[in-house]
Amino acid sequence: MIKVGIVGGTGYTGVELLRLLAQHPQVELCSITSRGDAGVSVATMFPTLRGRVGLSFVDPKAADLQACDVVFFATPNGIAMDQARTLLKAGVRVIDLAADFRIKDHLEWEKWYGMRHAAPELITEAVYGLPEANRELIKEARLVANPGCYPTAVQLGFLPLVESGLVDTDRLIADAKSGVSGAGRKAEVHTLFSETSDSFKAYGVSGHRHLPEIRQGLSIAAGKAVGLTFVPHLVPMIRGIHATLYARVTREADFQALYEERYKTEPFVDVLPFASHPDTRSVRAGNMCRIALHRPQAGDTLVVLAVIDNLVKGAAGQAVQNMNIMFGFNECAGLTQIPVLP
Amino acid sequence: MIKVGIVGGTGYTGVELLRLLAQHPQVELCSITSRGDAGVSVATMFPTLRGRVGLSFVDPKAADLQACDVVFFATPNGIAMDQARTLLKAGVRVIDLAADFRIKDHLEWEKWYGMRHAAPELITEAVYGLPEANRELIKEARLVANPGCYPTAVQLGFLPLVESGLVDTDRLIADAKSGVSGAGRKAEVHTLFSETSDSFKAYGVSGHRHLPEIRQGLSIAAGKAVGLTFVPHLVPMIRGIHATLYARVTREADFQALYEERYKTEPFVDVLPFASHPDTRSVRAGNMCRIALHRPQAGDTLVVLAVIDNLVKGAAGQAVQNMNIMFGFNECAGLTQIPVLP
Amino acid sequence: MIKVGIVGGTGYTGVELLRLLAQHPQVELCSITSRGDAGVSVATMFPTLRGRVGLSFVDPKAADLQACDVVFFATPNGIAMDQARTLLKAGVRVIDLAADFRIKDHLEWEKWYGMRHAAPELITEAVYGLPEANRELIKEARLVANPGCYPTAVQLGFLPLVESGLVDTDRLIADAKSGVSGAGRKAEVHTLFSETSDSFKAYGVSGHRHLPEIRQGLSIAAGKAVGLTFVPHLVPMIRGIHATLYARVTREADFQALYEERYKTEPFVDVLPFASHPDTRSVRAGNMCRIALHRPQAGDTLVVLAVIDNLVKGAAGQAVQNMNIMFGFNECAGLTQIPVLP
Amino acid sequence: MIKVGIVGGTGYTGVELLRLLAQHPQVELCSITSRGDAGVSVATMFPTLRGRVGLSFVDPKAADLQACDVVFFATPNGIAMDQARTLLKAGVRVIDLAADFRIKDHLEWEKWYGMRHAAPELITEAVYGLPEANRELIKEARLVANPGCYPTAVQLGFLPLVESGLVDTDRLIADAKSGVSGAGRKAEVHTLFSETSDSFKAYGVSGHRHLPEIRQGLSIAAGKAVGLTFVPHLVPMIRGIHATLYARVTREADFQALYEERYKTEPFVDVLPFASHPDTRSVRAGNMCRIALHRPQAGDTLVVLAVIDNLVKGAAGQAVQNMNIMFGFNECAGLTQIPVLP
Repeated sequence: MIKVGIVGGTGYTGVELLRLLAQHPQVELCSITSRGDAGVSVATMFPTLRGRVGLSFVDPKAADLQACDVVFFATPNGIAMDQARTLLKAGVRVIDLAADFRIKDHLEWEKWYGMRHAAPELITEAVYGLPEANRELIKEARLVANPGCYPTAVQLGFLPLVESGLVDTDRLIADAKSGVSGAGRKAEVHTLFSETSDSFKAYGVSGHRHLPEIRQGLSIAAGKAVGLTFVPHLVPMIRGIHATLYARVTREADFQALYEERYKTEPFVDVLPFASHPDTRSVRAGNMCRIALHRPQAGDTLVVLAVIDNLVKGAAGQAVQNMNIMFGFNECAGLTQIPVLP
Repeated sequence: MIKVGIVGGTGYTGVELLRLLAQHPQVELCSITSRGDAGVSVATMFPTLRGRVGLSFVDPKAADLQACDVVFFATPNGIAMDQARTLLKAGVRVIDLAADFRIKDHLEWEKWYGMRHAAPELITEAVYGLPEANRELIKEARLVANPGCYPTAVQLGFLPLVESGLVDTDRLIADAKSGVSGAGRKAEVHTLFSETSDSFKAYGVSGHRHLPEIRQGLSIAAGKAVGLTFVPHLVPMIRGIHATLYARVTREADFQALYEERYKTEPFVDVLPFASHPDTRSVRAGNMCRIALHRPQAGDTLVVLAVIDNLVKGAAGQAVQNMNIMFGFNECAGLTQIPVLP
Repeated sequence: MIKVGIVGGTGYTGVELLRLLAQHPQVELCSITSRGDAGVSVATMFPTLRGRVGLSFVDPKAADLQACDVVFFATPNGIAMDQARTLLKAGVRVIDLAADFRIKDHLEWEKWYGMRHAAPELITEAVYGLPEANRELIKEARLVANPGCYPTAVQLGFLPLVESGLVDTDRLIADAKSGVSGAGRKAEVHTLFSETSDSFKAYGVSGHRHLPEIRQGLSIAAGKAVGLTFVPHLVPMIRGIHATLYARVTREADFQALYEERYKTEPFVDVLPFASHPDTRSVRAGNMCRIALHRPQAGDTLVVLAVIDNLVKGAAGQAVQNMNIMFGFNECAGLTQIPVLP
Repeated sequence: MIKVGIVGGTGYTGVELLRLLAQHPQVELCSITSRGDAGVSVATMFPTLRGRVGLSFVDPKAADLQACDVVFFATPNGIAMDQARTLLKAGVRVIDLAADFRIKDHLEWEKWYGMRHAAPELITEAVYGLPEANRELIKEARLVANPGCYPTAVQLGFLPLVESGLVDTDRLIADAKSGVSGAGRKAEVHTLFSETSDSFKAYGVSGHRHLPEIRQGLSIAAGKAVGLTFVPHLVPMIRGIHATLYARVTREADFQALYEERYKTEPFVDVLPFASHPDTRSVRAGNMCRIALHRPQAGDTLVVLAVIDNLVKGAAGQAVQNMNIMFGFNECAGLTQIPVLP
């Protein structure tokens, strides 16, 4: 049993962390903070947790996070970078579900996130927490930058291709679609039910913060800078990301075998039979990423479909997976829930 | 470990049974039948079960159900009454998720279900599987009639009142709302997405099959015939039942205390603080029923709100709960998943 | 052609007014105000109006509303009561879509709305704009209090019964369900897509602001105080109200004929064949109220189903209907759009 | 006034035709056929039309379609090709909303649609009814092949580019998303609410019937064969198509000006300001196509976003637009409804 703390538990990644950690056999939930809701019992705010989580939110200043073995930051961007140093010094390991430590080039980060980075030296130390790419580094990490939701789906979908050098990496296209929970639990007009239901749109086409994160990951995998057009869309559903990826084949290979081989030992990547169509509900509330390949009209364009639950494999589930790796637990501990269908 | 079979596993109660049983620590899934889809692997039809359920659907004739300890019928009405006798003779216990054995008056049953009953003598033996009312009988039952979804929510909401004789039982009103999955996975126009989304309606106001079932249960609890107006509605959501119940108080009492006392040892009934508003998502994918009481304007009308997930506490979850009781397992075994929010 | 102004046009009733008025043959849209969005073109905020509405939002102070023949207030509660007096003095007629002038007892109003009323004398003058009850008064009115959405559906559903004295008016029950647009276009957590989609709940059971408004209208119709239990619910759909009404019959009559007779000349009330089930989409984007009667099990409880589009007959459409009556136009002018299905 | 008949009016394109034609100032609806529902009044099946359409469905054999000036086929594929010849001989003009006459190469058609074509000579005569490409031909046409929904959105989005020769037409990509009503009103499991709600998926990636139709239209516009990867997706919404189009720029130009110029006189194509994000609801229930251009990171990939309502500009509305052109009416007659938001 390890002691776990959560900073900022009132958003969707926070409550999802609570759902997963409350069912984790080796975790003792010790502290969960909230500036705005200190004193409120967690189960009052989230009745799903009645009888399962007895904690109340505590003010960040009053929380004894240093007594934890690991602290998750489920906060807006810019919080973890202020607080991680102190925790790390106290021997606490940190997993940041926000973006503070994802981009290695801190000037690039500052450009996209519009603030000064408070701890550039920690960016260097931080391990990018995509287990399928960085498992060995995660084991030893003190500080893990948990990937974004789009980046998880797009990277897992493209990785075998860009690692293998079989496609034109100058013009990758990622047409990605996300459920509305990806926008968080903030009070905003544009994510109201009446604004998003029964409608569909693209957003951030000219530039989205997940673009540099994806480009960084794929460039590392390719061994050179990749070119990527990334177009996110908003789907009238709560959870789920569907990435539709396009790449031009430059050298032929058995792509289905390539993917199956690449992911054969991965517990949370499921390569479907060739020409399948995974739906996002096939991973709803589960930590799985399902991938399928297509070769329309046998042309030179390869189409990859990748689905995840943005709150699980795209956030809280992957964070727990990272925690499992960091503490030497079974990587699947607490993550074996079967997705919910229908 | 017990051996479990499922007859008719391609509907929503079937796949929900599979989700729950595949995660149950004391169950070995042995056989699942389907006339139309024999030979198809379960995980091909329901990709959520990939890597978790290795079975294929088998033709009912080829299935060795008699080797099972218990068989669930997740079939349309009228199937279990034909097949239960043989299984019971072979020493197999049976849990019917359809309506075949729910109504004790078989003429009443035949009127509402429009067919001749094939095994009236089994109706007599069958135990109505509402654990909160019949736990002791369920323990010994060979044949359990698993309650309908509306009847579960409405009975759990009304039980303390009618048992106590504190309200006018001649004019109970149950205004109930269900998600679309309650209509099953049949190809029908009226449950198409484009017919049900972004709309709301009542149906079956003049008479719904769940009316006699609810009336029977409440009459037993009241010790006399009750009068009930039952109006079901269709909500554009997948899962969930919300029952809004109205009763006229004839004798004052501390109703909140009455409910808390009545359900204090029940693992799957959660009485919320007075004047709460449970939403159906607070039980989504979980086996819980949450109940709240209101007394608008301190008048003589008591309003009870009760929510369940129609596929879990309203079907498959309650069936597993009954199985746990029948076989002496921990009643919560395999049913501890925290509901999924958002 | 009359000159029309709108105060507060950035909410859902505002944009719906714009949709209807822009298609009205006798209306010239002159001015639309917004404090927060002055200077923004209407069609930029609401692209549906591109090419149809050329106005920009103007600051309330800069708006020449006194040059209008009629001004609609599509504002939060408490705005119209401050501004109506000046407009009326200038000879401008006023239709308030908020609640400022709906409740005749201003102390009652102040209790429910939590503020001091700024113009109690105007409450006396104001005509409650339910054309089916007050058409003659509306013709001459300078100031119309446009009814709330729930009150429109519930009153139209109950009116024939309470007017006729055929039911017990001490214990009327209105179990009402609304789409999320009824909560407006404010940035709030509880109406986010991820909070309301795929879920259902009651709210305000202990007391909702529409209760006194409905009670007032029904009491006038009954000629005595009525008793009403009103339970509103939130449906995961954008538009629509479904009122399920329960009344105990105290004197027998041909209720279907009663309703057909009562509404036979009403252009916007449609009495369906006995035992029909209107869905809210049957009135989506139209100004119609559809009503159906049921008599379950031929008992003494009458069930009335009434549906409207909360933004049309429940707000902007009814306001335009009132304007038509006030200015002697064809009552249906600008309101003949066929509802949108699917 | 012209006399209009509809063959097959019980599907979504049929009821949408009825909505539009019942509000058209120059149309007399004379006859509407249905094999399965002959005798049923239209307003009973579609209550939105109560008081607006007095017709009943008639058996195709009993319908006097030859007395009409124009007949719409809102039927499954393969019906119009059997019946058009007789009507044309009788001097009736025909608009087919199905696919029978869309593909000029009848062998290609037979391959994709899996049946023998019954009237190849009419394919030659038929005019492809995309007004923005073929307005002059439509004026004189006896037989119009109304375009498919995806093809309308994708062609309108790509036309200026492929006509101008400024992009690489060997590798166009159309990532398209459709609401569920595009699948029609047939009873099928895969379009049930519980199968499609709160989920998202691609389908037909390996080959979809709209691919050859789009390719044909774009190839004509380009003056040479184009290469296209077309990936359709299913969105949990009722109406709407969103096409996200990718093309590699081979020659620089002012693309925004190109689009504005190309469509400046088109009443139903609206080019938004550069870098806009049209949502599908901005055209809900209207006949408009809205288009926006993006140039992510100023690279050589141009992204075009195009939205339509699949049942209006993608089906019934475009059919009425074609009728207006054929009969010399104002092209916008009956099509001026402002889209419904929210």
